[in-house]
Amino acid sequence: MNGVLYIVGIGLAPNQITQEAIEVLKNTGAVFIEEYTSMFEVKPSEYLTRIIGKPVTPVNRRELEEENGSILIKAVKEYGSAALVTIGDPMIATTHSALLITAVEAGFSVKVINGISIVCSAISQVGLSPYKLGPVATVTYERGGVLSRRAYEVLLSNISNGLHTLLLLDIKDGGGFMSIKEAAEVLTRIEDEVKLGLVNDDLAAVFGSRIGWVDQAIKVTSITKPPDLKPPSIIVVPGLLNPVELDLLKLVHGADEGLLKRHIEHVKSFLRNP
Amino acid sequence: MNGVLYIVGIGLAPNQITQEAIEVLKNTGAVFIEEYTSMFEVKPSEYLTRIIGKPVTPVNRRELEEENGSILIKAVKEYGSAALVTIGDPMIATTHSALLITAVEAGFSVKVINGISIVCSAISQVGLSPYKLGPVATVTYERGGVLSRRAYEVLLSNISNGLHTLLLLDIKDGGGFMSIKEAAEVLTRIEDEVKLGLVNDDLAAVFGSRIGWVDQAIKVTSITKPPDLKPPSIIVVPGLLNPVELDLLKLVHGADEGLLKRHIEHVKSFLRNP
Repeated sequence: MNGVLYIVGIGLAPNQITQEAIEVLKNTGAVFIEEYTSMFEVKPSEYLTRIIGKPVTPVNRRELEEENGSILIKAVKEYGSAALVTIGDPMIATTHSALLITAVEAGFSVKVINGISIVCSAISQVGLSPYKLGPVATVTYERGGVLSRRAYEVLLSNISNGLHTLLLLDIKDGGGFMSIKEAAEVLTRIEDEVKLGLVNDDLAAVFGSRIGWVDQAIKVTSITKPPDLKPPSIIVVPGLLNPVELDLLKLVHGADEGLLKRHIEHVKSFLRNP
Repeated sequence: MNGVLYIVGIGLAPNQITQEAIEVLKNTGAVFIEEYTSMFEVKPSEYLTRIIGKPVTPVNRRELEEENGSILIKAVKEYGSAALVTIGDPMIATTHSALLITAVEAGFSVKVINGISIVCSAISQVGLSPYKLGPVATVTYERGGVLSRRAYEVLLSNISNGLHTLLLLDIKDGGGFMSIKEAAEVLTRIEDEVKLGLVNDDLAAVFGSRIGWVDQAIKVTSITKPPDLKPPSIIVVPGLLNPVELDLLKLVHGADEGLLKRHIEHVKSFLRNP
């Protein structure tokens, strides 16, 4: 059986769609979109329908995960090709890896069309060196009475190696994103439990709001004093900073020189191999 | 003084340019492009001239680095705005951070327009979890009689933490890219010096060629037996692999099951906190 499943990223904001994505979606039998893991400046399915001039069907988490994307597999069988669209780059969510495997097992070929991802955009807009970016983590809400310490542990490990950390923020079960204030509270609460002294007034953080959007905003403050910025947002906690990174944070994002000095001393006190 | 400098990424292949990049470049006073740090399917300046319908001037390393991008600063003064275009995302190279700082110091505002980056695309096309990606490194040629061990050290550190490593490949001084065969030889030569037993037949590597291009190719082999693939290329060395990642490497990229089993045991023997 021949058939092609496209897994297509459309970037973080409406005008970040690539020529390649537009072309693929215009020529594909059926187009589906998952809108539940991210947020766009406008309603993604309506925006996309306008751009490619044909219907775009939203799919929900149950259809993609519990039913193994059978709605897409059926569409490939019926039309010869189908596309699943996601905001950002489509392979950040393991959901889509599982779907890719299902499609290959069904005998289809699969083509991933890259979109601009929050992981690269965040570090790029903030202006820190990608060579010093450690593993990414997501700050999550307490669920079932359990507060995961994962994001704090990744942050601690990165800081111990002098690396930067990108923190993504959780999605609420009912939709919408964790605010940077809530994320800072989660990290402070874990700090109060583990008492390692990492998350305090000396730890600088770069708070990014609506990266790639028209109203993108970036502020550098202590992680304990998060600014009031609109969702969706991200937090980048710098590790060690070279002179260019320091200049950029000060000149471009208005970071306080005293905070950055305290931050560097703070990071140095956590270095595994100083 | 008012004026805007745009630093614009156009992705890895001609059709990866975004609507946003096209719009900005069409409306900017003067457009420059640096073509010396990457490679495109077609000549980037000619391609871009065709897309935006106006002249695109190539700039070289000397003009950007030694002369602090004064050619761009002059253009912003003269036309009110100017753009520097790069392949991929423009903030991966510190050159452009330095230019950004120079422009802000000259009193201009700077806007970074993201493009699809090799860092996110590589991990996405290979299909490994971005949450387990450790710091990126570049495998470099011997220069001035010195062979840098940096890439090997980053790889060792990532493997010790079970993390994946993206290895970018050096640019030749005369232009063109290091081949994956040369990169494997560099790593083997360092292994012969440090004798830690990391780079050997049991270490699996995902070799990616022309990511995002029409003739993209991905092969999984032992790092000591690199396939013959065309430049530009990248190498991803997996760390620990979850079941979805394992399935994907086997089913989608044809990885040998025996190699993957040996690889996982090999990684485990290097884990810092097993």
